[in-house]
Amino acid sequence: MSPVSKVYGATYSTCTQRVLFLLEELGIPYELVSISMKEGEHKTPTFVDQQHPFGRLPAFEDATTKVFESRAICYYLAAKYGGPLRPPCEDVKLSRFQQAASVEYSYFDPPITQLAYQKLFKRQMGQGEPDEQLVHECERRIQECLDYYEQLLGEDEYLAGKKFTLVDIFHAPWIAFLSRLEMESDISSRKNLNAWWDRVRNRPAWMAVTNMA
Amino acid sequence: MSPVSKVYGATYSTCTQRVLFLLEELGIPYELVSISMKEGEHKTPTFVDQQHPFGRLPAFEDATTKVFESRAICYYLAAKYGGPLRPPCEDVKLSRFQQAASVEYSYFDPPITQLAYQKLFKRQMGQGEPDEQLVHECERRIQECLDYYEQLLGEDEYLAGKKFTLVDIFHAPWIAFLSRLEMESDISSRKNLNAWWDRVRNRPAWMAVTNMA
Repeated sequence: MSPVSKVYGATYSTCTQRVLFLLEELGIPYELVSISMKEGEHKTPTFVDQQHPFGRLPAFEDATTKVFESRAICYYLAAKYGGPLRPPCEDVKLSRFQQAASVEYSYFDPPITQLAYQKLFKRQMGQGEPDEQLVHECERRIQECLDYYEQLLGEDEYLAGKKFTLVDIFHAPWIAFLSRLEMESDISSRKNLNAWWDRVRNRPAWMAVTNMA
Repeated sequence: MSPVSKVYGATYSTCTQRVLFLLEELGIPYELVSISMKEGEHKTPTFVDQQHPFGRLPAFEDATTKVFESRAICYYLAAKYGGPLRPPCEDVKLSRFQQAASVEYSYFDPPITQLAYQKLFKRQMGQGEPDEQLVHECERRIQECLDYYEQLLGEDEYLAGKKFTLVDIFHAPWIAFLSRLEMESDISSRKNLNAWWDRVRNRPAWMAVTNMA
């Protein structure tokens, strides 16, 4: 395996951005191996066999380890190099962290991924017009989740508590993407959420990622 | 908060079963507070305010802590009482575990939840007939995931490696549910997957859960 950290991904992929954000936070040198989704490079037999059995982005390797799935790659890097970004091991802190992580993958990510598909990618891929009923339902579910975050961020500065964690990193790419879904005002209109997003997006690591995309 | 462990849930809820399976594994005494989904008790303002901000099952409390989200509750209990079931903290083991956990919530859970809705719950809730195109797509995605597991379980006995972990527990309720979706043969026809499922379903803890449902 490669002696340097290699990310197989694309700068426009939100899941790749998650991993790049963390690598920039940790100041780990890495090589980004560009995989073109437009040309279907993530679905080639070699990539599926060697890097990601489900043919998705990103995948990761370094001198000792191969990992696929953006959040799993982040857990690996944070455990290895993370200092204060290491995921907690103690029962109560772990449950608070995993509760926030579960809200992200259960309530935040699914409707926003579906909405991006319906409003942008579906047409781009020649798969027809958006399903308006589904668009409406996704928007409703995103609002519900953002309302929860607004309340939560009235008590704590970050989504898993008082400190910046992987959970904030997991959210950043899709929060940034809301502007492309004409939902930017759903952040700016929520005071606590907007303040949180200002704290996150002004981190030099995130600015480095957005400069790449 | 309650001195004993309380699970707010329903024995027929797959997410509740996940938590009950772990409690039975750990031999922790608990009280199951039945919340009727049929009567909408999980959506009442009191339940949403006190137990689960998204109005889902299960939620959990003990003498010190409240947690919602089935997997987060399991992380809490395993970190507190888990012995060999404690989630790993070391980088490589953590990444292997989280990679398997991410496959579960990204590729296994979404299509099976949608399929159960389309084939069973949609009619029960008076929301119309199944969307056949979506049914077909969910079945295809489940097959893809089970094919991956079949390959994985040729190398290791359990989904996150050589030992039984929370990831196996997270899968059990929906694997058992496949028979209700007329997909039981998709387990029995895969040798390694079937052997894994025999190991899991014959655990006394899982048998105790199925006796409750």
